[in-house]
Amino acid sequence: MLSEFELIRRYFERSAHSNALTARRAEPSGVQLGIGDDCALLDPASGMQVAVSTDMLVEGRHFAAGADPFKLGHKALAVNLSDLAAMGAAPRWATLALALPSADEAWLERFSAGFLALADRFEVALIGGDTTRGPLNICVTIMGEVPAGLALYRAGAQPGDEIWVSGELGGAALALQHEAGRVTLEEGDRPAMLSRLHEPEPRVALGERLRGIATSAIDVSDGFAGDLAHILERSSVGALVHYAELPRPAVFSRIGDAELERGCVLAGGDDYELVFTAPQARRAEIEALGKEMGLSLSRVGFVQSGDARLMVLGTEGTPVAAPRSFDHFAEP
Amino acid sequence: MLSEFELIRRYFERSAHSNALTARRAEPSGVQLGIGDDCALLDPASGMQVAVSTDMLVEGRHFAAGADPFKLGHKALAVNLSDLAAMGAAPRWATLALALPSADEAWLERFSAGFLALADRFEVALIGGDTTRGPLNICVTIMGEVPAGLALYRAGAQPGDEIWVSGELGGAALALQHEAGRVTLEEGDRPAMLSRLHEPEPRVALGERLRGIATSAIDVSDGFAGDLAHILERSSVGALVHYAELPRPAVFSRIGDAELERGCVLAGGDDYELVFTAPQARRAEIEALGKEMGLSLSRVGFVQSGDARLMVLGTEGTPVAAPRSFDHFAEP
Repeated sequence: MLSEFELIRRYFERSAHSNALTARRAEPSGVQLGIGDDCALLDPASGMQVAVSTDMLVEGRHFAAGADPFKLGHKALAVNLSDLAAMGAAPRWATLALALPSADEAWLERFSAGFLALADRFEVALIGGDTTRGPLNICVTIMGEVPAGLALYRAGAQPGDEIWVSGELGGAALALQHEAGRVTLEEGDRPAMLSRLHEPEPRVALGERLRGIATSAIDVSDGFAGDLAHILERSSVGALVHYAELPRPAVFSRIGDAELERGCVLAGGDDYELVFTAPQARRAEIEALGKEMGLSLSRVGFVQSGDARLMVLGTEGTPVAAPRSFDHFAEP
Repeated sequence: MLSEFELIRRYFERSAHSNALTARRAEPSGVQLGIGDDCALLDPASGMQVAVSTDMLVEGRHFAAGADPFKLGHKALAVNLSDLAAMGAAPRWATLALALPSADEAWLERFSAGFLALADRFEVALIGGDTTRGPLNICVTIMGEVPAGLALYRAGAQPGDEIWVSGELGGAALALQHEAGRVTLEEGDRPAMLSRLHEPEPRVALGERLRGIATSAIDVSDGFAGDLAHILERSSVGALVHYAELPRPAVFSRIGDAELERGCVLAGGDDYELVFTAPQARRAEIEALGKEMGLSLSRVGFVQSGDARLMVLGTEGTPVAAPRSFDHFAEP
């Protein structure tokens, strides 16, 4: 069996030398020293703030036992990139800590390939890590840079601001329902939905473009209603959202299960879309940005003064009950 | 049961506001934004490099089931601080990701108290985290600052340099043997040895003082011989170490088991002392530093040109076999 040091060297250390970033630049992305010492050493650019986030993925909780390791490597990094996107930060560096039941080389090869492919695409340097034996657990800490003063906070939404959502909501939750056998997707609908769940696309470019435009932002990891609620709490404002305006995959109308749809669209996690607020005066600019980026950006409601309460209205103007957001410790 | 968000708020978010650091300064330690958003935002000081390290602790692997959560909180941060110490970096910020079998409030209160007490002592701001349900797993990412160009690397040892060790080696491994029932420590010896294992003291101040003096450094997490070997590999040099010079607790001579002693002193992990190299010309300076700090600093051998080989010599000048370093995946 490979030793811990051999494992790190074989599957991850190469990234410090061969990933796209290091290959392209003389001084690789502000990395003074990568994997292989007690710490990595970084040189953040002057005038930039460093954005940091960490996420832990646990087998049986965030992914099923036997999940495709390539997609898992992708997702472990993607959920962290999504946090940077929600701050408007540019991805730069990541650390990866892994607990594995055994030193399974085939698994590690696929996992690192999925992780590093996404890292290369977003020019993230893998600068450090840890491997140990234990129940499968993946912990990524991501670091990015954002010009001082331009980060997008959860606090900042103002009464009168419009609320926007990128892409579509509910697809990942629908795929999860399919995998749990609670609904059966037609063959033609599966690839797109399953990809939403297992290979989410972090909205990094959108986050960066929203600097100076959005007044607040968050990514949809736990569900639209719950995540928007964080913006409302931090901003001390309320919100009115039109349920019919929430963007969702067409497959929901083919299924025709209103309750399932509501659960997925309002409370389904794992979509990793951005929810953001912006003044009405920026509407045209945001619409143009969506067109330029080829990414649908939907106006779904507006921010109100008063209590940090989210009101979701149906087509008849009656309130739609928003199911609770997914919560790791509140689940049965 | 508390929700994930309530858990974070109750036990950890206060640290962003009440830990020693934030209480003492207007701009708390370069933290523009702490826990509570998608990312934390940091302002590294100009002219400084950011040192980053991550460690994952798994129940049954790095600590026993039922371990005292206060000490566990201490140790989870201490092992990361030790990595900063080995780079000569000043601790600044940390993230903490936790997987817990259940939201055990008593456990969380003790764990966070142990973690935050050490964080306060070293002026580390807890800037972010993640909590989830799963087999107990603790992942800390630590960030520190070091003036550009002054970090201590593993590479850098030069033939002729002397090899130094702080404090004592083997105490933590001896405590582990005691806990495993393979040796029985006398009552008077237990507290000091058990404290070495469960509440290690990271040599942060020493690391910072060695900037510009040491030519290389590493912390003893896996065992003296194995960790020194990393310096030798990275520096492309060999080393000769006198076994008798390696500092060890007096309890070993009372036990009188030469094999146990050799295993603990040469290959015992978890001591979190610093091993470093420095030119002979700095010897007096280092001795004065040890006196000033009240920390024993022992000269144990010297660096040689040639293969990255470690030769440990006994009192009769014959080689002493160095047991293999602890390795998470090579263990039975």
